[in-house]
Amino acid sequence: MDTREKALALHREWKGKIETTSKCAVCTREDLALAYTPGVAEPCKEIALNQAEVYNYTLKGNTVAVVSDGSAVLGLGNIGPYAAMPVMEGKAVLFKEFAGINAFPICLDTQDTEEIIKAVKLLAPTFGGINLEDIAAPRCFEIENALKEALDIPVFHDDQHGTAIVVLAGIINALKIVHKKEDDCRVVVNGAGSAGIAIAKLLLLYGVKNIIMCDKEGILRADAPWLNWAQKEMASITNNNNEEGNLAKALENADIFIGVSAPGILSKDMVRSMAKDPIVFAMANPTPEIMPDEAKEAGAKVIGTGRSDFPNQVNNVLAFPGIFKGALEGNAKQITEEMKLAAAKAIAELITEEELHEDNIIPQAFDTRVVDAVANAVKSLI
Amino acid sequence: MDTREKALALHREWKGKIETTSKCAVCTREDLALAYTPGVAEPCKEIALNQAEVYNYTLKGNTVAVVSDGSAVLGLGNIGPYAAMPVMEGKAVLFKEFAGINAFPICLDTQDTEEIIKAVKLLAPTFGGINLEDIAAPRCFEIENALKEALDIPVFHDDQHGTAIVVLAGIINALKIVHKKEDDCRVVVNGAGSAGIAIAKLLLLYGVKNIIMCDKEGILRADAPWLNWAQKEMASITNNNNEEGNLAKALENADIFIGVSAPGILSKDMVRSMAKDPIVFAMANPTPEIMPDEAKEAGAKVIGTGRSDFPNQVNNVLAFPGIFKGALEGNAKQITEEMKLAAAKAIAELITEEELHEDNIIPQAFDTRVVDAVANAVKSLI
Repeated sequence: MDTREKALALHREWKGKIETTSKCAVCTREDLALAYTPGVAEPCKEIALNQAEVYNYTLKGNTVAVVSDGSAVLGLGNIGPYAAMPVMEGKAVLFKEFAGINAFPICLDTQDTEEIIKAVKLLAPTFGGINLEDIAAPRCFEIENALKEALDIPVFHDDQHGTAIVVLAGIINALKIVHKKEDDCRVVVNGAGSAGIAIAKLLLLYGVKNIIMCDKEGILRADAPWLNWAQKEMASITNNNNEEGNLAKALENADIFIGVSAPGILSKDMVRSMAKDPIVFAMANPTPEIMPDEAKEAGAKVIGTGRSDFPNQVNNVLAFPGIFKGALEGNAKQITEEMKLAAAKAIAELITEEELHEDNIIPQAFDTRVVDAVANAVKSLI
Repeated sequence: MDTREKALALHREWKGKIETTSKCAVCTREDLALAYTPGVAEPCKEIALNQAEVYNYTLKGNTVAVVSDGSAVLGLGNIGPYAAMPVMEGKAVLFKEFAGINAFPICLDTQDTEEIIKAVKLLAPTFGGINLEDIAAPRCFEIENALKEALDIPVFHDDQHGTAIVVLAGIINALKIVHKKEDDCRVVVNGAGSAGIAIAKLLLLYGVKNIIMCDKEGILRADAPWLNWAQKEMASITNNNNEEGNLAKALENADIFIGVSAPGILSKDMVRSMAKDPIVFAMANPTPEIMPDEAKEAGAKVIGTGRSDFPNQVNNVLAFPGIFKGALEGNAKQITEEMKLAAAKAIAELITEEELHEDNIIPQAFDTRVVDAVANAVKSLI
């Protein structure tokens, strides 16, 4: 069986990769009287008196909603909420397996920004945190902002921030290898969707000064007519010299390429045009912007991809389990920019000076130290 | 420790009576590649091609949302969605333990009818069924009707229909003991909220001809000014002779009293005023409308309550697990009135002629035969 057939057969067998299970036995009348009526009235009354008690008596404090409208799923695009279910269930599995957090898929039957915001607000009492997933840009930014404003529980769009945190972790260590400083680097981010925009913002916060963002139409400039509102905002805080042109132009003398875009769009010539010891993160999945061996041949010094079969996998699973674990354990009301920075640094620091080399800049997905390192970094800022 | 302290201590220890657990191991890169990316794309694509495949590849087909706005919780009243969480978690436990169904609490931060309807519609892709719970009347009727109309998955308000099914099961067997026919009986239903109205409707469907409904203000008559729209509807299909008066008046020569009302409101004198061999279901919880020993002294022949420490407990757990099990296994789009009737008859039939006596008219909550008897009755009508 190939992977396709195997994945289908397994999903058919599982009929759901997660299930709900009972933590309390209900075998006797007394069990029933304690877990259900009449005993259950007691915790209800406590919460009615003081809403914060919901964290002591229910699953809320360790439970996350994995919310999607199915509009931007993996490499599959806008496949809708039903077809997005297997991904959201998979995400729920990762939450539990990596961080011990209960997570439940909530696939919404709408792609209207206001309806999504409203639905998540109404759902919030059950959950201790909201993980937004695979929602198209720029809608995702509005949704995240509105929910952060409205809710007193952490809201985190993983496609944006999970990716940005792990990219920054990788960049921090890659810069050590090439002996460059972040504030001296020219960084090109290709792909101005949710991930690309979040990456650029976090790099700016980290101290990168010179970022050029590109999308299919070329470099993002303030006066380009094709920008959406989120890209316009990015054009105003990147591209300091108001440069014009395509990706090839942007990459001349660049120190870092970060691709969250499309297969094969980075040529060897483009890599050759970059500054000395270029860093190339080619994260299009499953086929990167350039294959690692080609990038190497063209002179790239440090190469990262989204794939587990190459070195330096940029995998969100390094970030989101620890982010939520820290936020939930620490009872954080928000996941702040400072927490994201701290998480990236904590991930980078797990690679010691001795371990650090061009093919080992980021911990492996199954490195069990990561989740607590990230959680502690988050908690230290609550 | 008394029950109160014990229930609180246990809830504090559990911190949620249910959890989400993974059905697939994610220990290796290959596991990850099958359960998550890139393998997960395969079931996504199948569902995108044919939405019905969501039942084969995800948890949807065996998963129910337990939805509440916290407006009419147990004996606690309008305690809101946060304080309702322990009850909804408890319900989720019962779904899993009694029927093997995944259930997840969804406590909504609104008590607006339209907002509740909208939220549940938007949530529907994840779930195979919707169990509405502890939502106040008459709002609950509108919500249930709108959702049944809009959704292609079963919607069931347990406070209404679960109660009605189990009451009817008990009445069917109680009538055998007193040798009366349903179409000859005068039945008084006291409490014209969600449960009382659903009980009256199901009794009518079963063939009872003469029902008088009462609420705090007395008998429901078409021209009574205090009726809400749902009670007005009931007044038009009950109280055939347009009687007027209070509960005591209604009970004169009645054969059956069904109380879903308030503690202690049924006096011994009222029971004495009833017809020969009266049937008394006094289901106010935890304190019944009349205590069983008093009802007995006043001549009641068959007595049911909501409590597990008296004979003949009318417990919803006899109905809803099997109702949803049958509906989900049979892929029913709706739970019809005929299914509810069939479920009640199936529950009643589990008590054989030899076993039947005045203190044994309904199976026990932990009778493991019940769930499949009900599920099969439902499935036989799909």
